[in-house]
This record gives sequence, structure tokens and C-alpha cells, in this order.
Amino acid sequence: VPLTGPEAVRQHPVVSLLTDFGYAEPFAGLVKARVLAECPSAKIVDLTHSLPPYAIEAAAFWIGRAYRYFPPHSVHVCVVDPGVGTERRILLAELAGHVFLAPDNGLLTSIGSHPEARIRALDPGWLASAGLGRPSATFHGRDLFAPLAGRLAAGTALPEQVGQIVSDWQRLATTSPVRTASGVHGRVLFADTFGNIFSNIETITLVDYAEWEVVAAGRVLPWVRTYGEAAPGTVVALENSFGVVEIACVGGSAAGVTGLGPGAPVELRRRGDPERPGY
Amino acid sequence: VPLTGPEAVRQHPVVSLLTDFGYAEPFAGLVKARVLAECPSAKIVDLTHSLPPYAIEAAAFWIGRAYRYFPPHSVHVCVVDPGVGTERRILLAELAGHVFLAPDNGLLTSIGSHPEARIRALDPGWLASAGLGRPSATFHGRDLFAPLAGRLAAGTALPEQVGQIVSDWQRLATTSPVRTASGVHGRVLFADTFGNIFSNIETITLVDYAEWEVVAAGRVLPWVRTYGEAAPGTVVALENSFGVVEIACVGGSAAGVTGLGPGAPVELRRRGDPERPGY
Amino acid sequence: VPLTGPEAVRQHPVVSLLTDFGYAEPFAGLVKARVLAECPSAKIVDLTHSLPPYAIEAAAFWIGRAYRYFPPHSVHVCVVDPGVGTERRILLAELAGHVFLAPDNGLLTSIGSHPEARIRALDPGWLASAGLGRPSATFHGRDLFAPLAGRLAAGTALPEQVGQIVSDWQRLATTSPVRTASGVHGRVLFADTFGNIFSNIETITLVDYAEWEVVAAGRVLPWVRTYGEAAPGTVVALENSFGVVEIACVGGSAAGVTGLGPGAPVELRRRGDPERPGY
Repeated sequence: VPLTGPEAVRQHPVVSLLTDFGYAEPFAGLVKARVLAECPSAKIVDLTHSLPPYAIEAAAFWIGRAYRYFPPHSVHVCVVDPGVGTERRILLAELAGHVFLAPDNGLLTSIGSHPEARIRALDPGWLASAGLGRPSATFHGRDLFAPLAGRLAAGTALPEQVGQIVSDWQRLATTSPVRTASGVHGRVLFADTFGNIFSNIETITLVDYAEWEVVAAGRVLPWVRTYGEAAPGTVVALENSFGVVEIACVGGSAAGVTGLGPGAPVELRRRGDPERPGY
Repeated sequence: VPLTGPEAVRQHPVVSLLTDFGYAEPFAGLVKARVLAECPSAKIVDLTHSLPPYAIEAAAFWIGRAYRYFPPHSVHVCVVDPGVGTERRILLAELAGHVFLAPDNGLLTSIGSHPEARIRALDPGWLASAGLGRPSATFHGRDLFAPLAGRLAAGTALPEQVGQIVSDWQRLATTSPVRTASGVHGRVLFADTFGNIFSNIETITLVDYAEWEVVAAGRVLPWVRTYGEAAPGTVVALENSFGVVEIACVGGSAAGVTGLGPGAPVELRRRGDPERPGY
Repeated sequence: VPLTGPEAVRQHPVVSLLTDFGYAEPFAGLVKARVLAECPSAKIVDLTHSLPPYAIEAAAFWIGRAYRYFPPHSVHVCVVDPGVGTERRILLAELAGHVFLAPDNGLLTSIGSHPEARIRALDPGWLASAGLGRPSATFHGRDLFAPLAGRLAAGTALPEQVGQIVSDWQRLATTSPVRTASGVHGRVLFADTFGNIFSNIETITLVDYAEWEVVAAGRVLPWVRTYGEAAPGTVVALENSFGVVEIACVGGSAAGVTGLGPGAPVELRRRGDPERPGY
């Protein structure tokens, strides 16, 4: 039988990839080639290579959520990098035993906002000494991120070697949801392939869903626990599997039906008359 | 040199994935993360994540065909699951040394119809005792199928533990081809990316192709052994590489040219006058 | 910690795949299944399965570039094969420690043109003796390329066994760039997903980019080192990360903006008056 447990995880370190390289050319494959050249036993997991070009906010959302499902000591590489070849820095973050590599353009906003996260800026001097100082001008994913991720996975490079801890890394200027007397004002982050709309309102603090309703696109939406609870075609709100308020259309596309796009307002409010005194 | 043979297969158990999750979000990647957390040496093979949403019949076809090319002891996970979060059961099937996991919605029709197949319904009590009793309402692929597949691959869960053998699992109400005096009446299952049309007529019993012709979309189609035997643009019939009658257009899309869609009739008939007495 | 170095590469041999199978059906997955059946520890890397159908020239370009980023002893399988099932030969090439498998239709043009490359034609007698003599008529990727690649990766088949060295393999009748008094006349190979246009002009001999300008689609294009050097919307020329002259539109699609398609002329010329005597 195969080995399991921490030692097995160490023998097969995981490298995840999240890019906007697409699937039509071998760009992601070449990243993998270079990871394997450094760490032949690595398990490489594609999160996706189909991010819309330069979709930094959606990428930042997924980086902040996805790592939790990976074994510890995974290395997560995110390359959504419109500034490739310019002087933008490259960051390495550490959180909860995971390592993250990304350009310094806001991608690590959610990771870095965690109080236990540590973020380093790659030191050009160290990169040069590691033989990674002369990447091509337009494909740092292959020439820099991939070999570095492979070495971090293999343990032949260590986070504390790559550069100093920094605090001036770029944050996305996103507006967090706002608490109001009657609930929470948030907004749409993005719609997924199925047309399910992800909002930026976290559900973790909602004790009793029966108390709440969601207002978006001029509709008051019923809360459901699962898609199957409402009739086909109904637009509903639910806690999705990533812990945020989602707007979905049963058997259809909520994005198509409602027209809600990124940035549109989503309001979570207590049922009943919000004007009622003492509410 | 690397190890080969049964022991090597055991050291690197294969988990295949067949879903409608798409490639745009990290849904399939998160399934892989959780498989690897349970079975770090697993080899995960994407069959596809691009099934049309809720395409249960096409998925059932592929499940019944694909496993034959995998090494024994592979675990095949199929998640096309419009009923996720409702009370639908989850099934585990065993056939020819392979293990299959799927919701109970018809996906295992072709596997389960094999006389040697054994199908179990996952026992909620066992799932709870295994720490898998509280999945999110909308993403059982990640929260339940994946860790279970990883444990089955690793041997840390065994098929006989997960639940009782059942016989009342859901079958697709598909009409099998009908034998007639002159041949076989079948129908279209689906068209693939290239526009090649898969029918439900198995070719295994056809000894001499020269005796047969195919009638579909009002055309009598010539039999060929391979696409290259007819001129570009010709619509032909052939035994495809999955053992069914396929309708193809040389260098083009048969689905586009003929307009044949799922359910359309396909007739296989003996050459010559079908009305001739004694034929 | 995981093993690294040549021994680790041997334990986890890499097989790369480059096909036009698409992602909608499990075709590529079945190829992987059969590779793993022969070589359970193989690392399989998708270069892409989204080549346009029968895009032999683009495939040949990528084969000639991609292998350089892989560890030695990798096996590269390319199946873009409109002649599948006909009498076309299958080739095995060796170059720089890498092994390549492809149908004999021009795909190995760039590999084979290297003076150190060795190309063999698979011997039907050997294939039969190896149990690979009866593939399906339409899916040699699964039935022949995959198991052979797995055995080559595992070392259970050796290049020198599979057939004789041949010199009459098919070359693409592509016109190489032509040197002129003022520079180089080349042409467009293809545009990638981002609309970046790859030409067939290699940049390796250009010492000083400041001396050159690119003329295409009736425009004189400025040279840049990286996309970020010009304003959004500008159409520029640069040395891309694969060593050829690329035409790009900053933040946009050069293919869309210029209308340049495969075969269109691209001229690299020295700055200044090309008619000037002695220039």
C-alpha cells in the first residue's frame, strides 16, 4: 500500500498553479516542466489557467480560499502579472505552513491581511546567486516562478533565504462590506462558470439564516441552504461552499438572469421592517 | 530505472475525475488537493471537467468505457450532480478491480448493469464516523468525494466499510437498440468536440462490415474502417475506437453537416433489399 | 525531504503530451491512463490539447521549443494526426537526451533538422511483437503512442529497438526567413491566445535591437524589451520568450488590431534609409 501521512506529503510536495495563461498554448506545461526539473516528485495541481486576463481581484479571492484544502507545505504559485518585465517586485508569503509566490500587484491581499502571514520581497541579488537573475522579459512564470517553486517544494531553497520581510506590499483597494443598522452592504466579486454570483459578504457570522434576506438587482431573494430547495428558475441566496453569500438561479445562470456584474451592490438585511424602532 | 508492475501501481494509485466543474474556477483543483491530502502519491487523471452541465447520459457512457484503460485498483470519481445537497444517495461501485464513486442519479447505469458489478450506498453513519458527515451544501466533490477517493486509493478506507450493497440504485431510462428483421434501430448518444456522432449501437457483434450500411438523417452512409478512406466532406459510418457505430464527416463535423442530435434515430441495416423474402 | 537530482528524475520520468484532442471528452485522460499503466511513477505534463485541429505547423514550432525546459530523458508525445488509420508511419526521434513520438507528417521538422537528431520509423513487426500491432483505426494516441511512451519512460522499451533510422521523414515545406541587404523577410507563424503574433524570425543573431525595426501590416513597429515599455494600445515588436520576433499590442490583441494571420509577411530591417548606398 502507498505511504500516507506527513512523511508521504513530504515525499510528494504539492505545487499549485493559478494563472491567466490559458490552455491553448503550452505556457502552463512549461511551468510544470521547470517545477519537475527542480523537484521530480512534485505533485502539480492546476487551480485554473483560465482566469480572465489581469483578473487580480478574482485571483486574490481564490488564493485566499484555495490553500486551506491543500496539505501543509504546499507551494502556491499565482501568476497574473500584467507588469511582467517591469520593475514590479515578486513576493513570497508564508501562512499556516503554506508558501505563496506572486507578483506584488495585490494578489496577496487576502493572504497578507492575516495577522500571522509573513511576506518577503525576492532579493535580486539572491535570485542572481541562485541562477534565476536573467529571466526572459515576458515569461517569468517559466523562468523564475517555476524553478523557485520547485526548489521551495524540494527544500533546496528556503523562504528565509529569498529576501527580507516587507510591509509595503500592494493591497487591493477593495471596499469591505459595511455593517449598517439593518444588516450588511456588500458587493459582487465575480460570477463563476455556472453564473453563480460570489459576493464579498462572509457568512461566518450569520447564526440564523432564517433571520436574513438578500437584496440585489432590485429583488428580495429567499435564503436557501442548497440549490435543490427552490423551484427551477428561482433566484436565491445561499451560503456557498467558500463561505460567502452567493446569488444563484436554480438550474440556470444568476448572472444572466439578474445582470449583476462585479462591483454591483448586494445587501444582506434582517427580515421584517428595517425602519421599525429597536430593530 | 523506475519501478513497474503491480507493486508500482500500488505505490502510485490512480484516481480519475469526470465532472462538469469546468476549467475556469479552481473547483477541480480543490478536489485534487483533498485527494492528495489523503493519498500523497496518488496519480490524478482528468478525464474531463467539461461535460455539459448535468449531462448524465454522456457521463454514464464515458464511465462505462474509460475505466478499461486504467490500471487495476484505480478509483474513478464522477460528479455530475444536479441534486447536490439534497437527500440523494452516493454510490460506490466495484467492477473488475476498479472502484467508482458517483451520486445515485443514473451515472452508474452502464457499470451497474454488468453482472459482476457490486454497488453500495454510502452509509451516513459511516461517513460521520469517518469525519465526512458535514460537507458543505453545494460542493460534495471537494468535501466528500475527494477525501473518500483519496482514502480508497490509499487503502485507508475499504469499499466494504462504506455501506451496504443495494439493488435499488437509479438506472437511466434509456432505450437500448432494437433488433429488427433487417438490422438494428438505435439512436444518437452525443457528438464529440470534432462533431463525430456516437450512437448507442455496439459493433462488437458485426462480423463483416461489408454486409452493413447505416441510415441516419435520411442518408445511406458508407461504412469505412478509417476516416482516411473517404474523400473530404463525405459523411461516413464506422466502428469507432469505443466500439460503437459512429457517424463522421471526413475533415469536418458530422453533427454540423447532418444536424443529428441526441436521441435521433440511427439504423444499421443489411445491404440489399430489406423487403426481399428470406433476407 | 524529497529526493532531487538525476536519480529522482529517473524515478519520476516525465511524459509530455501535445495534441488536438480538446478537453471536452476524455481522450487525453485515456492516453494518460495507458501511460500510467506502463509507467506508474510517470509525471505526465499537458503541453496543450487545444491545438487547432490539424495545426501541424504550430505543433511543430512548440515541439521544437518546449522540450528544452524539461528534464533530460523526458518522452514527448505529439499527436496531431489527420492520417490516423492510414499507412502513414510513426516516428521516434532522439535529441539531447529527449525522446519524441509523432506521426510522420511534418511534426518533427524542427527536431529532425538538428544535426544531432536521430529519427527512426516504428517497425510494424516490432510493434506486433510488443503487443501494439492492433490499435483501433481512429485512436492511435491511446492504443499505440501512450503505451509506447509509457514503456520508453519506464525503460521497458528502448529507442534502438523500435525500428531503423530513416532519413526520408516528412519535412514541412515552410519557407525560412530570407536575408536581404536591409534585413530579414519572414512571416507570421500563428497568434497565441492573447493575440500575440509569433513570427518565424529568430532573434538570436540580433546583437543590438536599437538598430532594428519591424514592418508588418503596413506599419513600422517600435522595438521594446517588454510589454510595459509602451503605452496601452501600442503595437510593438519584441524578442519573445521563445526567441522569435513577436508582434504584440500592449494590453490588447495584436492579431485583432493588425489582422495579421499565418503566412503574412513580417520584415525586420535596419533603421535608417535602406536605399542609402553602403548601408
